[in-house]
Amino acid sequence: MTRRFALMIDPAASDDVRADFADTFTLVDAAAPALSVGELSTQRGDGVFESIGVVDGHAQEVVPHLERLAHSAALCDLPLPNRAQWHQAIERAAEHCEAGEYVIKLILSRGVEHGPTPTAWATAAPASDFTAVRERGIRVVTLDRGYDLDVAANASWLLLGAKTLSYAVNMAALREAHRRGADDAIFLSRDGFVLEAPTASLILRLDDRFVTPAPNGGILHGTTQLSVYEYLTDRGLAAEYARVPASDLSRADAAWLVSSVRLAAPITAVDGVELPVDHALTADLNRYLLSPRD
Amino acid sequence: MTRRFALMIDPAASDDVRADFADTFTLVDAAAPALSVGELSTQRGDGVFESIGVVDGHAQEVVPHLERLAHSAALCDLPLPNRAQWHQAIERAAEHCEAGEYVIKLILSRGVEHGPTPTAWATAAPASDFTAVRERGIRVVTLDRGYDLDVAANASWLLLGAKTLSYAVNMAALREAHRRGADDAIFLSRDGFVLEAPTASLILRLDDRFVTPAPNGGILHGTTQLSVYEYLTDRGLAAEYARVPASDLSRADAAWLVSSVRLAAPITAVDGVELPVDHALTADLNRYLLSPRD
Repeated sequence: MTRRFALMIDPAASDDVRADFADTFTLVDAAAPALSVGELSTQRGDGVFESIGVVDGHAQEVVPHLERLAHSAALCDLPLPNRAQWHQAIERAAEHCEAGEYVIKLILSRGVEHGPTPTAWATAAPASDFTAVRERGIRVVTLDRGYDLDVAANASWLLLGAKTLSYAVNMAALREAHRRGADDAIFLSRDGFVLEAPTASLILRLDDRFVTPAPNGGILHGTTQLSVYEYLTDRGLAAEYARVPASDLSRADAAWLVSSVRLAAPITAVDGVELPVDHALTADLNRYLLSPRD
Repeated sequence: MTRRFALMIDPAASDDVRADFADTFTLVDAAAPALSVGELSTQRGDGVFESIGVVDGHAQEVVPHLERLAHSAALCDLPLPNRAQWHQAIERAAEHCEAGEYVIKLILSRGVEHGPTPTAWATAAPASDFTAVRERGIRVVTLDRGYDLDVAANASWLLLGAKTLSYAVNMAALREAHRRGADDAIFLSRDGFVLEAPTASLILRLDDRFVTPAPNGGILHGTTQLSVYEYLTDRGLAAEYARVPASDLSRADAAWLVSSVRLAAPITAVDGVELPVDHALTADLNRYLLSPRD
């Protein structure tokens, strides 16, 4: 078994009604050339993606990830992914994941310039070790995302609800956070509301309720946030979507950035102001997020 | 001679003081796999690029393009490109361009995930035939870019002055324009000022002066716009940078979208309102833009 794995997926077969998509997959060497320089993913960041956590060979939250991939594809006018085909690709990738934590990435690109079809592939690779981060927590800074909270409502071409390959701003925000001595960033809308992190969703605890910024088209709907909300509501806790003013950050009783691979990272400080950390709940959340989930 | 050409460039050699970079170039088949799936250009649109027009084997405005590539790289915290190396890569690519119009693309990516260096390459390919478009002109629609005009001043992580590979929004704006029956789009700031087109700069004629939106960090400084301004000022015409309110569009005496490959495309209508076209000047501009320039 190789530690890194990559599979090209032929999306032209996606209209077929069939049970087995094995012949639409081509195993490639993850370190060797596999994509042409004409790829629009590489030239224009033109495509959509998902990152799926894998724990001891079990790919987590596969259905919500495939739903979001389809949602992103629709927002980008890409052909809808065939879920059965992608599901099998994920299964194939998961077979190559050994014990411990891995990450499977799904990429659906617009394809080669002037080409007939999208290009698609899935990869699997060992995840970074986030054990210490999940316990110790992260320091974050707030960064202006430049948009008002309501901008997505009348400007679908800004693709704000899509998880596109155009992540240069997200990566730049992380570098800016590191420059400021923090581990991560939280984007604020121009008009002062909390949005999301560059690669994670935010959950706050305010008194006895949990709050996350409403995914109103302006931000992604986090699959891990959905899982956490299921966990909390199953325990009778109040978990809500809301407009979250930036001032709520410093008065939170606890806060987390949650994402598919790092899972629940407790926030220890926002813009240099310390936040209380709920170590017990954080440990519970990560235990839950590391258990097999579909 | 092949009609499509691609050259991988080793940026690790860029610190060298040398006259000949030939051994840092690797010719690859433009249609064959050349990039690994771990490429951050393809996973995150994380990199910068330039598109250079080539006319009868002469690469146009090479120095301004290399300057902008370096500017974009700096904004993205990428190692500064070695200009002598890139210049030689452009020369090599131009040698493969036959008579007529070609486009050379330069791409500087952050490299392979967890890899030691950026990845870089140059391609050359025949340009689309824009002869008719340059004469007949284009219909455009205005689209909200979501940002206020001054947003770039205090949010460098938005990378607004960089020509990054994260162009999914630009591509979505073009699709939205086509959906509305237009050929192209003009982005407006949220607060009502004219910015740029998804892949071109805008120049207006208002009475006896030419005006383009000031590249204040929020938009790219167009290399073709710079060339046109040189042409105009050499002829004693007034060519200015300004804050351009959206209302100036419908009262313009003439307007163009200018870019490196399509060159000067006269705008015949904005949001369905017809604009006068200066056919004589348009022909002059394109004749000039098709002449050899450095």
